[in-house]
Amino acid sequence: MGRVTERRKVIRVRDGAVSTRPDTLVAEEPLEIRLNGKPLAITMRTPGDDFALAAGFLVSEGVLAEQGDLQNIVYCAGATVDGSNTYNVVDVRTAPGVRVPDITLERNVYTTSSCGLCGKASLDAVRTTARWPIADTPPVRVAPELLADLPDRLRASQRVFDRTGGLHAAALFTEEGELADVREDVGRHNAVDKLVGRALQNGDLPLSRSVLLVSGRASFELAQKAVMAGVPVLAAVSAPSSLAVDLAAETGLTLVGFLRGSSMNVYAGEDRVALRAAAAQG
Amino acid sequence: MGRVTERRKVIRVRDGAVSTRPDTLVAEEPLEIRLNGKPLAITMRTPGDDFALAAGFLVSEGVLAEQGDLQNIVYCAGATVDGSNTYNVVDVRTAPGVRVPDITLERNVYTTSSCGLCGKASLDAVRTTARWPIADTPPVRVAPELLADLPDRLRASQRVFDRTGGLHAAALFTEEGELADVREDVGRHNAVDKLVGRALQNGDLPLSRSVLLVSGRASFELAQKAVMAGVPVLAAVSAPSSLAVDLAAETGLTLVGFLRGSSMNVYAGEDRVALRAAAAQG
Repeated sequence: MGRVTERRKVIRVRDGAVSTRPDTLVAEEPLEIRLNGKPLAITMRTPGDDFALAAGFLVSEGVLAEQGDLQNIVYCAGATVDGSNTYNVVDVRTAPGVRVPDITLERNVYTTSSCGLCGKASLDAVRTTARWPIADTPPVRVAPELLADLPDRLRASQRVFDRTGGLHAAALFTEEGELADVREDVGRHNAVDKLVGRALQNGDLPLSRSVLLVSGRASFELAQKAVMAGVPVLAAVSAPSSLAVDLAAETGLTLVGFLRGSSMNVYAGEDRVALRAAAAQG
Repeated sequence: MGRVTERRKVIRVRDGAVSTRPDTLVAEEPLEIRLNGKPLAITMRTPGDDFALAAGFLVSEGVLAEQGDLQNIVYCAGATVDGSNTYNVVDVRTAPGVRVPDITLERNVYTTSSCGLCGKASLDAVRTTARWPIADTPPVRVAPELLADLPDRLRASQRVFDRTGGLHAAALFTEEGELADVREDVGRHNAVDKLVGRALQNGDLPLSRSVLLVSGRASFELAQKAVMAGVPVLAAVSAPSSLAVDLAAETGLTLVGFLRGSSMNVYAGEDRVALRAAAAQG
């Protein structure tokens, strides 16, 4: 627990000069997520916030949607031969009455046996499992200038990245641009799951007044996680994929990409970006 | 098939000026990989090289190790209600006699029911399933100057990245620094799987004289893929994780990170990097 970084010896080569020194690396360890005692998934993650990670993963999978759905989360002791606890296996126990779908990683939300596997089926699956339709009333509206500031605010709060360079980050901002939470992880999906899981634990779902910023690209799965948590605006520093854009368009999610300096691309849900104000200033 | 990019409308904001235009995005679609008819995994990937992706995935999982292990790979028609082919489901059929372990994504190579789930167990699992111990005889030896050139050579060959900014890349180089193959994908694991799968199809495994370059970070899973394909040198443009370094040290893999300009960090297997020559020049 808390092994966010580890030290290893490294040989540095700088313009032909060679030196040996200790280096700080981001820690990576497997985490097995169990649901009511049944193994469900293994993810390679940076230790820490494991309960939030597990809870957020289950929000993305459509199992959990609010604080009351969760009974508790525990580390599984005795997972090793000698009975010690590796802190790498967590069991999420749902509250009585929560319907636990028969989800497995082989046949997860992207497909069912009766439909073809394709982008369209993936979009439909998210739409039918989403417990929090995006419903920001009144609509969230953010200025391009506010969006443009977010990457700097994220970087200023990334504690481990500066030391290791090895972490993806995800942050939640209020519609006024205030940083509400930030999580770092060796896996970018995990960083978002940790944010969403913490919000579930705090009773803050749906995140209907939040802007979610991710440090890298916007894939389908990241857009899915935003939608499942009821986030109305997803902004990414790098490029989105075609399917992320399609999911945003279908669900009403605002998707901003290539958020760099004062420039950005708006791929869907432009109603929430105050573009007229920007044009008037241009 | 071949839908590597797709076009979508985008609203561009540049210093307050707003314009609408078509944009080229990297295509992302789900791919279901079946093994002898049984669904095994779903990955979100950029279409194209799907057979290579499936074959490479199964090399990483320890199912396939050489050309003769593979009988054939086909797209599954009839996966949709109307019987049409989405080209998003492939079935990998192994040759008679190939032992197919009982692998599922819940209980994959990272753990067994009898061992604790931890980094050490993950390393042991790779070591015991690796069919190609790293055995470069005589040892591959590369100069730091050669390694420093590889990222530029990779970028020069990335066809789709320039248009979309949305792709991870992986490339195989000879020990003389010649580009042997390059693959791009929305998922970085997929790019490596496509390289390794193509090598399997061509009868080129183990890749015991190759340098594998990845455009991003070096995670445990990327190091695992290198080890499973018998690659002696893995170089990454960005940071490695602790577990990637540990796996490299345990298996004899040379791991280079932060390969930028004339600088780099060597985390393991430094015998293959001609550091004395570099020091003499420094």
